[in-house]
Amino acid sequence: MIEDTPVAIATFRDAMARLGAAVHIVTSHGNAGTTGFTATAVCSVTDTPPTLLVCLNRNASAYAAVVENGVLCVNTLASSQQSLSQAFGGKTPMAERFAGGEWTSLQTGSPVLHGAIANFDCRIVEARQVGTHDVLICEAVAILSEADSPGLLYVDRAYHALSLPERL
Amino acid sequence: MIEDTPVAIATFRDAMARLGAAVHIVTSHGNAGTTGFTATAVCSVTDTPPTLLVCLNRNASAYAAVVENGVLCVNTLASSQQSLSQAFGGKTPMAERFAGGEWTSLQTGSPVLHGAIANFDCRIVEARQVGTHDVLICEAVAILSEADSPGLLYVDRAYHALSLPERL
Repeated sequence: MIEDTPVAIATFRDAMARLGAAVHIVTSHGNAGTTGFTATAVCSVTDTPPTLLVCLNRNASAYAAVVENGVLCVNTLASSQQSLSQAFGGKTPMAERFAGGEWTSLQTGSPVLHGAIANFDCRIVEARQVGTHDVLICEAVAILSEADSPGLLYVDRAYHALSLPERL
Repeated sequence: MIEDTPVAIATFRDAMARLGAAVHIVTSHGNAGTTGFTATAVCSVTDTPPTLLVCLNRNASAYAAVVENGVLCVNTLASSQQSLSQAFGGKTPMAERFAGGEWTSLQTGSPVLHGAIANFDCRIVEARQVGTHDVLICEAVAILSEADSPGLLYVDRAYHALSLPERL
C-alpha cells in the first residue's frame, strides 16, 4: 500500500539537481513573435517519427508565444556557450538574449544557434498539461548536428564540460 | 511554411547521441512481477506536485509489468555503477540483473538501489502514447538522495563520469 506522504518540494529539487543534463536554448518564431529560453527538461521520446519533448512552465514568459507559434527549435549548447545559457535563463530582455549568438533558420523559422552541438527544428504536435507545466511533444522536421565540440552540462547547480579523459 | 521533409531516423539518433544524459535504472514491483531496465529518457516535469517522466518503448520486455504494477522507482546511477547499467540495458535475465546490486524499498515496493546518487519512488499517474513509446508521468511518493559520488553520464554512446575539475 502506498501511503499518502507528500514529498517535500525542496527534497525533490535537491535530488533532481544531482542529475546531469545537457543544456538547451529553446527558441520559437511565428505570428506570436520570437522568443527563447534555457531548458534542461528535454528528452528524446521516439525515433518513429523522430520526436522529443520539452517541459515548459505555463507561467514562463516564453510560454504563450511558443504554444501559439506551434513550432520551436531545441539548440543543444556547446561547453563554450555558457554565457548564452545564462542570458536565456534570466531576466535579460529578449533582444539582448539573441544578440549574444549567431542565428540562422531551417524549416520552421525558429532561431537556429550557430555552434550548438545539435539543433532540432520541430513542430509541436501536442501540449499536455502536468501540474504547473506543459509537456510539449515535438516532432523534428529538420536537424543540424555539425559542431564537434563537447556539450555543456548542468549538474549540482553548476556548469560542467565533458572532455575526453572523462571517458570510462 | 513547413515542408513535409521527413527527418531520417539515423540523423535523429546521431544528433540525440550527442546530448549528455544521466543514466538510470528504472525498477518496478507489484502483482505483475519485478522488473527493471536502463533508461536515459527521464526528466523532471514539475515540483508541484513532485513529478518526473520516463519514456518507455511499448515493445520493451519490462513494459507490461511496469504499466500493470502502476509504480516504479527511478534509480540515478553513480559513476561506479556502469556494470549495472549494462546488465539492465541488455539481454541479461532479470534475476541476474538484480544480483549485481544491493536493493531495499521505500513506499511502492519497487527496488531501490543502494549507492545510487538519487532514488525517486513513484506512482505512475498517466501513460501517454507517443509513437512507439509511452511517456509515463510519475509522481514521487518517496525520495532518497544520500550518496555523494559523481553521477554516471552517457554521451556520444559512451559512459563518462564528472569530476570536480570539470566545473566551468
